[in-house]
Amino acid sequence: MKVRKEVEELDPYVPGRSKEEIAQEFGVKKEDIIKLGSNENPWGPSPKVKEAIEGELANINRYPESDLEELKKEFARYSHVKPEQIIVGGDGADELIDTLAKTFIEPGDEFVVPLPSYMYYEFLFKPYGAIPNYAKWNLETNTLDLDSVLNAINEKTKMLFLCTPNNPTGALISQDELRAILDKTNKSKGGVCDAVVVIDEAYFEYSLTNNVNLLDEYENIFILRTMSKVMGLAGMRIGYGISSKEIIEFMHRIKPVFSLTKLSYIAALTTIKDTEYIEKSIKDGIESRDFLYDEISKMKSVKVYKSYSNFMLIDIHDTGYTAAEITREFMKRGMIVRDCTSFKGLDEYYFRISICTLEEDKKFLEVMREILNE
Amino acid sequence: MKVRKEVEELDPYVPGRSKEEIAQEFGVKKEDIIKLGSNENPWGPSPKVKEAIEGELANINRYPESDLEELKKEFARYSHVKPEQIIVGGDGADELIDTLAKTFIEPGDEFVVPLPSYMYYEFLFKPYGAIPNYAKWNLETNTLDLDSVLNAINEKTKMLFLCTPNNPTGALISQDELRAILDKTNKSKGGVCDAVVVIDEAYFEYSLTNNVNLLDEYENIFILRTMSKVMGLAGMRIGYGISSKEIIEFMHRIKPVFSLTKLSYIAALTTIKDTEYIEKSIKDGIESRDFLYDEISKMKSVKVYKSYSNFMLIDIHDTGYTAAEITREFMKRGMIVRDCTSFKGLDEYYFRISICTLEEDKKFLEVMREILNE
Repeated sequence: MKVRKEVEELDPYVPGRSKEEIAQEFGVKKEDIIKLGSNENPWGPSPKVKEAIEGELANINRYPESDLEELKKEFARYSHVKPEQIIVGGDGADELIDTLAKTFIEPGDEFVVPLPSYMYYEFLFKPYGAIPNYAKWNLETNTLDLDSVLNAINEKTKMLFLCTPNNPTGALISQDELRAILDKTNKSKGGVCDAVVVIDEAYFEYSLTNNVNLLDEYENIFILRTMSKVMGLAGMRIGYGISSKEIIEFMHRIKPVFSLTKLSYIAALTTIKDTEYIEKSIKDGIESRDFLYDEISKMKSVKVYKSYSNFMLIDIHDTGYTAAEITREFMKRGMIVRDCTSFKGLDEYYFRISICTLEEDKKFLEVMREILNE
Repeated sequence: MKVRKEVEELDPYVPGRSKEEIAQEFGVKKEDIIKLGSNENPWGPSPKVKEAIEGELANINRYPESDLEELKKEFARYSHVKPEQIIVGGDGADELIDTLAKTFIEPGDEFVVPLPSYMYYEFLFKPYGAIPNYAKWNLETNTLDLDSVLNAINEKTKMLFLCTPNNPTGALISQDELRAILDKTNKSKGGVCDAVVVIDEAYFEYSLTNNVNLLDEYENIFILRTMSKVMGLAGMRIGYGISSKEIIEFMHRIKPVFSLTKLSYIAALTTIKDTEYIEKSIKDGIESRDFLYDEISKMKSVKVYKSYSNFMLIDIHDTGYTAAEITREFMKRGMIVRDCTSFKGLDEYYFRISICTLEEDKKFLEVMREILNE
C-alpha cells in the first residue's frame, strides 16, 4: 500500500521516557524513580478529583456528552472570556493543534516557529503538507529573536506558534513582541498576511501573566491551554483553546465529537472549580522552580536558564558529557531527565528538568552534584 | 480568517442525544430515562474495571505510556493475530479512521461507502479532501448491493468502508462479497487500484463471526474494532485496528502519541482480560436483541430489520409519523431512540433502537405499542 510522502518522511516524535521503561532498562525500583522529564505536576491531582471520578464509574459504558457546555463555562470564567470563545480538546492541547491544521492549512501553507520550541507543532502540522519556516530564540540572552520571526513571515504564512513561557527555554515573549508579530500577520493592521498566531500558554500559570487581553485587540489569536501542568491531569488528556467566536465556531465544525472521555470531563470540571488546589499548585511550583534554579546556578560546570515555567533548561557544554550520556547517568540513579537532543535548534549538550517536591529536588541536586563532581 | 473550503462546506455530524439534554428539554427525570439511541452496552462496564481505575487515580498527574505494549498483546491474543498487527486508538475507533486518512489520503482521492452506513467515516475523511463515491445497501433484501460497490471502485479509489454488521441496517457482508471487493482493490490480484478496505467490526461480537482470517489472504485490509459496544467502555474512548505489519507501522508514525488516557488504558486492559464479562455481555446482548426483534416483528404498522448487532432499524413509513415526530413521542415518555434522518441513504421514515436490559426492553415495547396504537 502506498502511503503519503509526508508520512514516509516524518521524523518520529520523541516523548519523555516513562518510569516503567527506565525501571526495566536500568533495574531500578519503579517506586523509587524520580521523574523530572515531562513537566508534570509532582503533587498529584486535586484531592476532589478522586471522589468525582468514583461517582462517575458506573456510567462509563455510556458515550460522553458532545457539547461540554458546563466545562466551557468554567474555562471561560477562569480565563475571563465568554464561553463561546472556548474550545475543549480531548487529547490535551495536541488535539487542538491538529484541529487548527484541519481548519486552516492547505498543502504548501507555511507555519513559523522559533527554535528551540515544542516539537509537537511540527509533528502535527507536517502531515497536512504545511511547511515549517523556522525562526529562532537567542540562547545567549534567552529572549525571542523577534527579527527572525518578523523576517520569517510572508504572504504564504498561515500560522505561527509562539510558546510563552517557551518550552524548553523557559523564557517569556513580551506583549510588545507579540504586538509586532500580530501587526505583521493581520492585513487590516497593515500586515503581509492573515495568519493565526497561536500563543501556547501551557505553562502560563507559573509565570503569573497571560495574554488574554490581546484578544480584544486582535482577531487572529488562538491561545492554547492545557490541564496537564498546574492542573495535575496530564494522564487525562484535556486541553482548551481561547480565540474569537468566529474561529472557535469553525473549529467546532471539524473537531472530533466525543474525544474527551467521561472521566476526563468530570476530572476537568472538578479541578477547574478547585481554586484552593490551583493556587497551591502554582505557589508550590514556583517555590520548587526557584529553589532548583538557585541551587543549580551555584554549580560551576553548567549554565541554567532562568525559567518562568515548571521546568528549566541546562547547558552542559563544559561538563564533558553529552545530553545522552548525562541522561544515562541520571537514569542509572533512578532519575528521569529530558535529553533535549531531539529539539531542533539545540545541539547535543542540553537537558531539561521539571519541578519535583522539595524533598525530591534535594535528592536530585545531590545526584547532580555527584555526577558533575561539584 | 479564511478557513478551508472543506470546513465551510462540512455537514455537521449529528450524534445520538444524551440523557441530560432530554431531561432538560422534556422535563423528565434523568434517572428514569431509558437510552436506546447510541448502541451502548446497557449493563455497565466490567465490575473489575472499577477497582482497577481506583488503583490508578493517584497517578493521573503523569502522562500516559506512549507504547501501550501490554494492551496491544492482549488485543492480539483476543483477535488471534500478532501484536505488531495491532494499533490502539485513543478516541475510540474514530481516531483510527482519522489516522487512516492522514496516512493514505491525498486531496482528490476517492473513498467508497455503501449507504446507509456510519456517517462518521465521511465526517472524518472529507476534511482531507477525499471525495465520497457512494454505493448502496439494498433495503428491500437488507443485503449489500455488491454490484454498486464494485462499480464504484476505480483507479482513484484509495479506501473503502464496509461496516459489518452494518450500522444502521444490522446486516452482515458475506466473505464472498468481501473477497470480490478485495480482488478488485488489489492490483496483485488483478484489481484496478490498490486501496485499503476498512472492515468495520465495531459490533462483530454480536454476530458471532469476524473476518480476521482474510488478513492471511490480503494485505490491504484494515479491521476496525472498538471497546464502546460489547466491552462496555463507550465513555472511555478506546478503539483498536488490525492490519498487516506494514500498514500498522506507517500508521504508528503519524498517530497521536498520548491520546489514550491513563484510566482508559487500565480500563481497556482489565476488560479485555475479563473473559467472563465479555461472554456474558455477548450472550445477554443477543438475548435482548432477539427479544426486541421478535416483539417488534409482531407490530403491524412497522417493519423491523433483522440484525446481527446490538441495534435494529425500524421502518415507519406506514405509521403516519416521521422519524422526527416519533422520536419526540418517545422522548416525551423518557426514551431516547435514534432518528435516522441524518443517515444518507435513508429518508425521514426510519429510526434505530439499541438493546437494553430485558426490563427496559419491556417498558420500551409498551411505550412503542402505545404510540402506534398496536
